Amino acid sequence: MKTALLTVGTEILFGQVVNTNAAYLSKELQNLGYDVMYHYTVGDNPGRLKELLDFAYHDCDLIITTGGLGPTQDDLTKEIIAEYFGEKLVEYPDQLEILVNHFKNSKYNWTENNRKQAWFPENNCTVLRNLHGTAPGFMISKNGKHIAALPGPPREMKEMFETQLKPILESKRDSVIYYKIIRTINLGESSMETILLPLIDGQTDPTIATYAKEGECSLRVTSKRPTYEEAKAACEEMIGKVNDLIGDYIYSYEDEDLLDVVGKLLIEKNITISCAESCTGGGFAKALTDVPGISAVFERGLVTYTWRAKQEELGVSLETLEKYTAESEEVAREMADGLRAKTGSDICIAITGIAGPDDIDDARPAGLAYIGTNYKGETRVTKVWRGNRGRVWNRNLFVLRMLNDVYQTIK
Amino acid sequence: MKTALLTVGTEILFGQVVNTNAAYLSKELQNLGYDVMYHYTVGDNPGRLKELLDFAYHDCDLIITTGGLGPTQDDLTKEIIAEYFGEKLVEYPDQLEILVNHFKNSKYNWTENNRKQAWFPENNCTVLRNLHGTAPGFMISKNGKHIAALPGPPREMKEMFETQLKPILESKRDSVIYYKIIRTINLGESSMETILLPLIDGQTDPTIATYAKEGECSLRVTSKRPTYEEAKAACEEMIGKVNDLIGDYIYSYEDEDLLDVVGKLLIEKNITISCAESCTGGGFAKALTDVPGISAVFERGLVTYTWRAKQEELGVSLETLEKYTAESEEVAREMADGLRAKTGSDICIAITGIAGPDDIDDARPAGLAYIGTNYKGETRVTKVWRGNRGRVWNRNLFVLRMLNDVYQTIK
Repeated sequence: MKTALLTVGTEILFGQVVNTNAAYLSKELQNLGYDVMYHYTVGDNPGRLKELLDFAYHDCDLIITTGGLGPTQDDLTKEIIAEYFGEKLVEYPDQLEILVNHFKNSKYNWTENNRKQAWFPENNCTVLRNLHGTAPGFMISKNGKHIAALPGPPREMKEMFETQLKPILESKRDSVIYYKIIRTINLGESSMETILLPLIDGQTDPTIATYAKEGECSLRVTSKRPTYEEAKAACEEMIGKVNDLIGDYIYSYEDEDLLDVVGKLLIEKNITISCAESCTGGGFAKALTDVPGISAVFERGLVTYTWRAKQEELGVSLETLEKYTAESEEVAREMADGLRAKTGSDICIAITGIAGPDDIDDARPAGLAYIGTNYKGETRVTKVWRGNRGRVWNRNLFVLRMLNDVYQTIK
Repeated sequence: MKTALLTVGTEILFGQVVNTNAAYLSKELQNLGYDVMYHYTVGDNPGRLKELLDFAYHDCDLIITTGGLGPTQDDLTKEIIAEYFGEKLVEYPDQLEILVNHFKNSKYNWTENNRKQAWFPENNCTVLRNLHGTAPGFMISKNGKHIAALPGPPREMKEMFETQLKPILESKRDSVIYYKIIRTINLGESSMETILLPLIDGQTDPTIATYAKEGECSLRVTSKRPTYEEAKAACEEMIGKVNDLIGDYIYSYEDEDLLDVVGKLLIEKNITISCAESCTGGGFAKALTDVPGISAVFERGLVTYTWRAKQEELGVSLETLEKYTAESEEVAREMADGLRAKTGSDICIAITGIAGPDDIDDARPAGLAYIGTNYKGETRVTKVWRGNRGRVWNRNLFVLRMLNDVYQTIK
């Protein structure tokens, strides 16, 4: 079904707010099998809004608006849509009751201008409840055309779309899209494509698309079929073939982040962990402690930026520091071993390297790091080097590689 | 001048990419004094592109397009604009030379389809050089209307806008906007507004607008005058008045983040710092080490998540932990003091609290934290409590309050 998105909001035209609503809806509609043909954004201006509505109406079967449903005089989306469809607005007593009750239960006082949020087109109209705000949305279907009006605040809009509008749109479409996003690590995009070429070549349905992300790579398997069951079965068959080819590199079949997979594994298997960081400066500890419940297994983090801190906290020897420098495989190993001696955690992971932006010298360029992982007394050191892409990028990659080393150890 | 933005890009209609180009250009145009009336997005479809161009042309004096300037057959923006303005496309020899040289100096091979990137409207056209890609942009001015075409990749688009198009637009406007963003801390938005009311009330030019951000508040002083000098002088006079009223709360007149201000101060004044974190889990150390050059003053970070870690690393007494719990003013103080005894850093800052999402008990709700700051031997503890707004928000606020406590100590 041909679809247009019409965003009403002066703050978007001012550039104060990025139009994430349009991106969200586009993605959702695409997944439902609807073709999004246009995005429009317009301010709180009745004339321009009506013009754009008319423009979209002639080309599209479904128009979704966001914004302009509130209680103030500026909020005109509903009035203009009703007028365009030749529908009269009337007060819906049940909606008025919900609204009045809402105010009774809140700290805000009822003002009479709120009443207009209980007015809706008299015919051909479905009201869409708003769980996170006062302004309900609605959908009109008439002459084979559909227009749905959603509120502007993303939280209200998403909840309403997900729980109210999406089920309606699902019932109106003529095919179903099912997809899975598979996450991999330690496999470049071009290598992945080469390995999967027998599956990708001449694909019609399901399709396979690969995406490179920072330091990792994911792929999306998509099928469009008449029914959900058929699309799902087609995807699952294809995922089986993918798994035969690159299963070793896959860490999630459910589009989870590596951080969440690692956090869950540590908690589930009750594996205790401590970390010692130089170049990541606490970034690994910060990431890991983003996972709720991690306190059950996370024992300690040390940010040993200086030689002195490495010696005092981790027992790295001055000799090693002087002979190999702080940014060396040997120091990474001693850091991990010292951390193990100190904490006794099952996994003791340590990193040292050069965050950048500048190189230290030719042998120690920004972007180079060593990760030492001591697992129950045995230590392995890996080297990270993907070039220097700036301090922020380097540090993010370092943390991701630490997560990967933990994952490879405990998976 | 009335302006429309026309984005050409299927990936935006698919929701794969958020339309940040439109937000960027809106903000820039707003600052230049141009009124952005519409955003449109359309795919690589000549018919729809032409229709939207026509729609925008009748209402606006300036249209800026992004995307569709590349070498492939899909890229049709230039062709359609030229056709719409009744201009013939011809090859520009100087542009062809630039293009051919570009390929000579790169690892890519010249293919004949690249030639079309050297074709431009024969008359009324200014070519806009592309520093980060092969496709130049251009601007046509005809019959009092202007249309500028920029490339789609944000990096190319921004550079071209900043260095080529912006100067042209500056010369065409009839007034200049000058503004400054002032950042404050420890002052709520409503208090700020109340204090500044004498300045805000009945304001015409300069205007003052306040913005609440996570845990802090900023204000923007804007003036629109015939010349840059006049606008700047008007803003500066107003900033003087603002400073008289809320100067104590201002930490930046240049829209800097508190982190950058604090990092710069520490480095400039050569004040050494160490930190001990519980609920922020390394978030403070991570933030501080985002600042390049911080290694000159950052000595050590400890993430003491467990009682044992607090005792072993910082000498927090078991008695204090048992009597007051780990999430207490007393433990924050002992953490800071223990860190000072261990490291001798000028500033030793420590935090303990409840990140959430769940409360520990009534006395220890998620969102509550204590920050201990030992500065050269003297310790001060502050309490953080702004309610519980979820783990991520709480942890971000905690780090911001730690930065504030450092700032208040050394400013």
